[in-house]
Amino acid sequence: MPSLHTALLQSSGRPGDVAHNLQVLKDAARAAAANGAGLLACPELFLTGYAIGGDVHRLAEPADGDSARAIGEIAAEHGIAVLYGYPERADGDTVYNSAQLIGPGGERLANYRKTHLFGCFEREWFTPGEQAVVQAELSGVRIGVIICYDVEFPENVRAHALAGTDLLLVPTAQMHPFQFVPESVIPVRAFENQMYVAYINRVGAEGEFEFVGLSCLAGPDGVVRTRAGRHEQLVQAEVDADFLKESRADNPYLHDRRPELYGPLT
Amino acid sequence: MPSLHTALLQSSGRPGDVAHNLQVLKDAARAAAANGAGLLACPELFLTGYAIGGDVHRLAEPADGDSARAIGEIAAEHGIAVLYGYPERADGDTVYNSAQLIGPGGERLANYRKTHLFGCFEREWFTPGEQAVVQAELSGVRIGVIICYDVEFPENVRAHALAGTDLLLVPTAQMHPFQFVPESVIPVRAFENQMYVAYINRVGAEGEFEFVGLSCLAGPDGVVRTRAGRHEQLVQAEVDADFLKESRADNPYLHDRRPELYGPLT
Repeated sequence: MPSLHTALLQSSGRPGDVAHNLQVLKDAARAAAANGAGLLACPELFLTGYAIGGDVHRLAEPADGDSARAIGEIAAEHGIAVLYGYPERADGDTVYNSAQLIGPGGERLANYRKTHLFGCFEREWFTPGEQAVVQAELSGVRIGVIICYDVEFPENVRAHALAGTDLLLVPTAQMHPFQFVPESVIPVRAFENQMYVAYINRVGAEGEFEFVGLSCLAGPDGVVRTRAGRHEQLVQAEVDADFLKESRADNPYLHDRRPELYGPLT
Repeated sequence: MPSLHTALLQSSGRPGDVAHNLQVLKDAARAAAANGAGLLACPELFLTGYAIGGDVHRLAEPADGDSARAIGEIAAEHGIAVLYGYPERADGDTVYNSAQLIGPGGERLANYRKTHLFGCFEREWFTPGEQAVVQAELSGVRIGVIICYDVEFPENVRAHALAGTDLLLVPTAQMHPFQFVPESVIPVRAFENQMYVAYINRVGAEGEFEFVGLSCLAGPDGVVRTRAGRHEQLVQAEVDADFLKESRADNPYLHDRRPELYGPLT
């Protein structure tokens, strides 16, 4: 009966200040672990900030860089897995908008590069990723990772469902006026794909953006298990693998698909 | 500036009584036309009833059968297009769960055969259709038709978006405890595909089922323009092609897709 208590850190940290944000993450990991969480998930680009212009290049790190090591130590100290968003430097000058999952022993479990970049800012500074489905196993739960705009495309979440994702982690930087996404799209993605979906947002003003918060964890019945407001907040809910199994038996969407009719989508 | 006032007839008629149901349809067509509607949409299997067991075979008609002619006369009399669900007999003993769109001159514009059958009842009595996208032009608006369970698969609605559907008509027989579909899935389908979606449900008890009503018409902003309650009702809202065009420019989902990553879906 695997179940995974999952904590969502809704916070923008301090944009541009990596050391500060690592401290915020450390405090959240301690609090989440003390509350029984096995996983702490942070927003998109949490490590560095989002609306920091070209500083996303200056602050970019490789997936096995200093911050990955620091977060590995935090994870191991508190025995909690951590997902965090960061600008990833790879192959010299290439920078991805990435999210990395670190296991409770401090080991790097999975690294995802955002495939669907949003708007001018992201297209100016980031290279899109080319791998749609990135997964890792954690406490008997198959974890998947995508980022923000990716989740608005039903194709991306469907690909995860077909690959067996139980809990999809979606760090995000969702802004006004798109609160329809956390409020409505996330529960529908969970329902139509029969999985849990966690959406972990930034909050408050940053540069030209106003992030809307409303982080949530939705279950395969479309019911939101926990929902943050519009301020910095750490919320937590359970991912119940037994309930997921029952729900999938009652809602056989994946079985009833007719892929031979879906050719136009590719 | 094409716009199309669309009326949704939320009614179960009288299951098994085609003559009665044609009269209900005629009364609704008169009322909708008097209220300025250019299109009246009725629920799944409205012509015959849904939970009537093998009578769906006994009452099945070809797409150009007596009832199609009768509805053509109703449409022409009131100058209003009509979409209605019915069991379609084709090639001898083959029966489809179909929906047909009749133009305001009484002409047959489009006929769709449900591709995703739901549950044991439908699989026992109906043959699944093989054509995913069926469309017709009406008052400058591109109409698409799918039926009930079809809409719960994001792939089906995406195929319509890629084919240019502006208004997707979804006659349905949605039952307890699936009110999440009219309440949440329909607005999300409209938003993620940037189209209008009309969901026209049966209502009340019928055989072993309790239909939940809640028919609605949602716009590309995810906002529901009109919503029926849980009783027989005729509701109406506008499909605004100008607003649709603006919304698509602001939400370029179709442009930002990366079909080269969606291979696993087919």
